Amino acid sequence: MEQVSANKAFGGVQGVYRHASSATGTEMTFSVYVPPHEQGAKLPVVWYLSGLTCTHANVTEKGEFRAACAELGLIFVAPDTSPRGEGVADDPDGAYDFGLGAGFYVDATQHPFAAHYRMWSYVTAELPALVAAHFPADMERQSIMGHSMGGHGALTIGLNHPDRFRAVSAFAPIVAPGRVPWGRKALGGYLGEDLAAWRRHDAVALIEDGAHVPALLVDQGMADNFLEQELRPELLKAACEAAGIDLTLNLREGYDHSYYFISTFMADHLRWHAARLVKE
Amino acid sequence: MEQVSANKAFGGVQGVYRHASSATGTEMTFSVYVPPHEQGAKLPVVWYLSGLTCTHANVTEKGEFRAACAELGLIFVAPDTSPRGEGVADDPDGAYDFGLGAGFYVDATQHPFAAHYRMWSYVTAELPALVAAHFPADMERQSIMGHSMGGHGALTIGLNHPDRFRAVSAFAPIVAPGRVPWGRKALGGYLGEDLAAWRRHDAVALIEDGAHVPALLVDQGMADNFLEQELRPELLKAACEAAGIDLTLNLREGYDHSYYFISTFMADHLRWHAARLVKE
Repeated sequence: MEQVSANKAFGGVQGVYRHASSATGTEMTFSVYVPPHEQGAKLPVVWYLSGLTCTHANVTEKGEFRAACAELGLIFVAPDTSPRGEGVADDPDGAYDFGLGAGFYVDATQHPFAAHYRMWSYVTAELPALVAAHFPADMERQSIMGHSMGGHGALTIGLNHPDRFRAVSAFAPIVAPGRVPWGRKALGGYLGEDLAAWRRHDAVALIEDGAHVPALLVDQGMADNFLEQELRPELLKAACEAAGIDLTLNLREGYDHSYYFISTFMADHLRWHAARLVKE
Repeated sequence: MEQVSANKAFGGVQGVYRHASSATGTEMTFSVYVPPHEQGAKLPVVWYLSGLTCTHANVTEKGEFRAACAELGLIFVAPDTSPRGEGVADDPDGAYDFGLGAGFYVDATQHPFAAHYRMWSYVTAELPALVAAHFPADMERQSIMGHSMGGHGALTIGLNHPDRFRAVSAFAPIVAPGRVPWGRKALGGYLGEDLAAWRRHDAVALIEDGAHVPALLVDQGMADNFLEQELRPELLKAACEAAGIDLTLNLREGYDHSYYFISTFMADHLRWHAARLVKE
């Protein structure tokens, strides 16, 4: 693992790192904020999964998470959203919603994407091992959040790992990719017509199929251009109600899909996570 | 004035605006954050001047000022750092420290820069009139801050307008441009060999020549690559001591010249400003 940069911020260190990933067969870049802490301490880890077109850099620069992470003692990890580099297949038309910057946190089974698009394995297995080995991380205390496509990633990874993540939250998530254009294109392109596999990567379907977490927190801007066609929080609400999952769904008047929205509610989410990450 | 974008953030609106500037003879872009406020209220205005290579966008995206501005009720204005566009002269070698992105907050007198490089007039006269006309701004309650070259701008504009700005602060400012390479290149290029004009655009020289403000706040990272050659806060310290100006100079161990440094101490500066911007 190579350190690309390290900047002191809010008493801790905002680092960017690069490594050769065995999951994706490419170099991968990610960022980690380590807050100020006592020598030898092990700190809880918050995973943040980013949305379409983003890299680790968007939330690292615009997410405004460091003040709260420093105050609450949280490590904040931000992976990239897809493999990148020579030989990595992209959307045939270069669209923003598939291929590069749009890995959708699945392990692709379809040619030519199966070769490198293995973001599920990367985010759930390879990168956690790297974080555990190189940072003062208490891997018994992890939580996960994300935005849009990354909200989809956070929800599906959280629902698939109820024993690993003590808190799961999202900003403007894609909650039912199997039923919306972004998701149908991505799941079809990466997973083909294996509809059982689709359901394992669809938060609403997972809940319908019995996956359970004690609580979810979702913030959704009501001026978000993608609200009605792609995000559809009402589907998550209905699924949680039917399953008895305690969903806090904050509908935020006037807010859009941008980091201006995310940064506004980031500290709220981190406090909600921190309350669930206290040592037992 | 044309609105380029408007995003709700922290209960207020982060806007970006464009207008035809008579000062620079070009289009100019700037950003304004207006915090949540009661209908009809007039709010104090904090000016933020950016450093070399920046536009309005850097601090707007990375400055982490909105949470504090929303809490404290401050309008936050971020101008560009130079004229831009067709026909605007640049550094003959395309260097980052002169010409585009490097207006140094002076009115150039030297060919070919005098035609458009009139950032002093733009920031001290034209843009304030525009802000007063279009935003709920109480122009009796203004303060100014900046970073690096913009710290130089904030200090020199503040020292030249002691009745206008109730608070003046800076992150890693160029305090004595007449004595450092960045400043000597810029002042020479824009103002020629008129050394009296140089002194009016040099914070340390202004203080030596009798300019006075009640108090200054400066934060300086001790891991800043530009500290010894370009920034030299010890010169400001000595000038303030000799002149009886109450300088708070915070030397911050481990911090560099980046927005990771600025964002860490932004809220501190805004609180210091807000305390001086209360209604009398």
